[in-house]
Amino acid sequence: MTWSLAFDLLGVFCFAISGSLLAVTRGYDIVGSVVLGSLTGLGGGVLRDLVLGITPTAFDQPVYMIPPLVAAALVFFLAPEVQRFPRTLLVFDAAGLGLFCTAGTIKALQHGMNPAAAALLGFTTAIGGGLLRDVCANRNPKLFDPRDIYALPALFGAAAMTALWHWGAASVLTQALVAVVVFAIRVLSLRLHWRVPLAAGERTRPASA
Amino acid sequence: MTWSLAFDLLGVFCFAISGSLLAVTRGYDIVGSVVLGSLTGLGGGVLRDLVLGITPTAFDQPVYMIPPLVAAALVFFLAPEVQRFPRTLLVFDAAGLGLFCTAGTIKALQHGMNPAAAALLGFTTAIGGGLLRDVCANRNPKLFDPRDIYALPALFGAAAMTALWHWGAASVLTQALVAVVVFAIRVLSLRLHWRVPLAAGERTRPASA
Amino acid sequence: MTWSLAFDLLGVFCFAISGSLLAVTRGYDIVGSVVLGSLTGLGGGVLRDLVLGITPTAFDQPVYMIPPLVAAALVFFLAPEVQRFPRTLLVFDAAGLGLFCTAGTIKALQHGMNPAAAALLGFTTAIGGGLLRDVCANRNPKLFDPRDIYALPALFGAAAMTALWHWGAASVLTQALVAVVVFAIRVLSLRLHWRVPLAAGERTRPASA
Repeated sequence: MTWSLAFDLLGVFCFAISGSLLAVTRGYDIVGSVVLGSLTGLGGGVLRDLVLGITPTAFDQPVYMIPPLVAAALVFFLAPEVQRFPRTLLVFDAAGLGLFCTAGTIKALQHGMNPAAAALLGFTTAIGGGLLRDVCANRNPKLFDPRDIYALPALFGAAAMTALWHWGAASVLTQALVAVVVFAIRVLSLRLHWRVPLAAGERTRPASA
Repeated sequence: MTWSLAFDLLGVFCFAISGSLLAVTRGYDIVGSVVLGSLTGLGGGVLRDLVLGITPTAFDQPVYMIPPLVAAALVFFLAPEVQRFPRTLLVFDAAGLGLFCTAGTIKALQHGMNPAAAALLGFTTAIGGGLLRDVCANRNPKLFDPRDIYALPALFGAAAMTALWHWGAASVLTQALVAVVVFAIRVLSLRLHWRVPLAAGERTRPASA
Repeated sequence: MTWSLAFDLLGVFCFAISGSLLAVTRGYDIVGSVVLGSLTGLGGGVLRDLVLGITPTAFDQPVYMIPPLVAAALVFFLAPEVQRFPRTLLVFDAAGLGLFCTAGTIKALQHGMNPAAAALLGFTTAIGGGLLRDVCANRNPKLFDPRDIYALPALFGAAAMTALWHWGAASVLTQALVAVVVFAIRVLSLRLHWRVPLAAGERTRPASA
């Protein structure tokens, strides 16, 4: 197994955990947990591969179905313990974000995309699964929550990976480093409530954001 | 017209009926009924064909636009009668589920997909339209409703069709048989409230599932 | 820059404005405004290009990323002024609708689609971005609002453009003309509350449509 496959499967696993944890919160059954976890873990990569014009890896390599199954099983047995830490979903989501924004960007560059498009596709890969998860579970996407930052670390990771590739410095090590930085920024923003200005400059923050 | 086209159009029609019935419930107008019915009837197949890397049949063969138009017209004229049977939407949805999980799997196998991926794609075809319907109508997807089983019969149908294909026993007859079994399981689960364990093993079922 | 590219970028800009204005209403931050604007402006075209089997222009030509950035910046600085006109979102959405239903149809015809499929794909291009916007922002899609007409002008525009193409009369001028007519119908329907019959013929209009 190559490093890039390992990183990709780890990203699928992290997002799948976040999907299965949301399934618990919403009172879904174990099958719904597998399905929502799969949607979350595989959705971003499927979208990425459709844009690249290749067969989505999730439908090409059966190994991609394993992480969502493991994730749903883990959540099934450990949910009561995990529930005591309400941010668990977001921490796994943040890990997936870091792994996917870097992996998606590299795959796009490997397929000959121009740098701007590769960064955009890496970003799309990273936010796609979580957006699909929240939309299908009929809740406001975390992507748009103004109480912390979500898109920005993923954008940074995709841009940094593009720059590293351009400088000939893209490797397993630099990918892991960027993924960790993205993860750290996202988790710190959750804890410290880092914010960026609202969409409407001078308006006051609405009560029901 | 081949049997496989007939089955496919029947599946589109059944899902389109479910979409148009939801449009009635939500108070949409007749155009919204056609659009939501089309999304429901054609959405799963479009997704399947995009993954297969071929032109979606809905955009290739104009005949696919007829079932949603007929469905919306039928619902328009018969809605008051149909409304007396509140489960009608789900019964048509179940018929579409049976037809699409088998048809989608066969098409994937015909295009050379490996068995696991073919079953996954057949499953995706079957649940795709209904998920799109519920998400676009901004309601909790039936797919995730823990009060009966939805994904499981579709998964069973996709797996059974894959096994039949592997054994050289895939035919119009066996496809129809599997579709009927999937339909029957789904409808019985609605009536008898068959359930599977919740996503979180030991937790109690939330009141507002 | 060709006329068709200019029209396309203008359509992206109009839809992006509508997305960024919705981001303001929902209390998103400036990054969420860029992301929702991009989804709205680029989503329909990405879907169109995936169906056509080509690399989505948004991921092929970096210039497509500029309109959403400009739109979010304009909304950021002008939101308080714009908020005084509550229909602004819908007016920009209507402009995008006119531009995209015509441009999408022409592109589909240029790629050899049959007339019915080309009109359907032009329609899909036009409604796709706005539907994605509303679904991702977790609100009832304007597409399905029965208090005015939304899908009908887009359908008309796609059909008219197909007919003009068939008659050898498709040009920048006729495209602009059709786009203006679509825009005018949509805006008049907002002001005059034009309606079509409900999905259920005889039923009374529900209070909470």
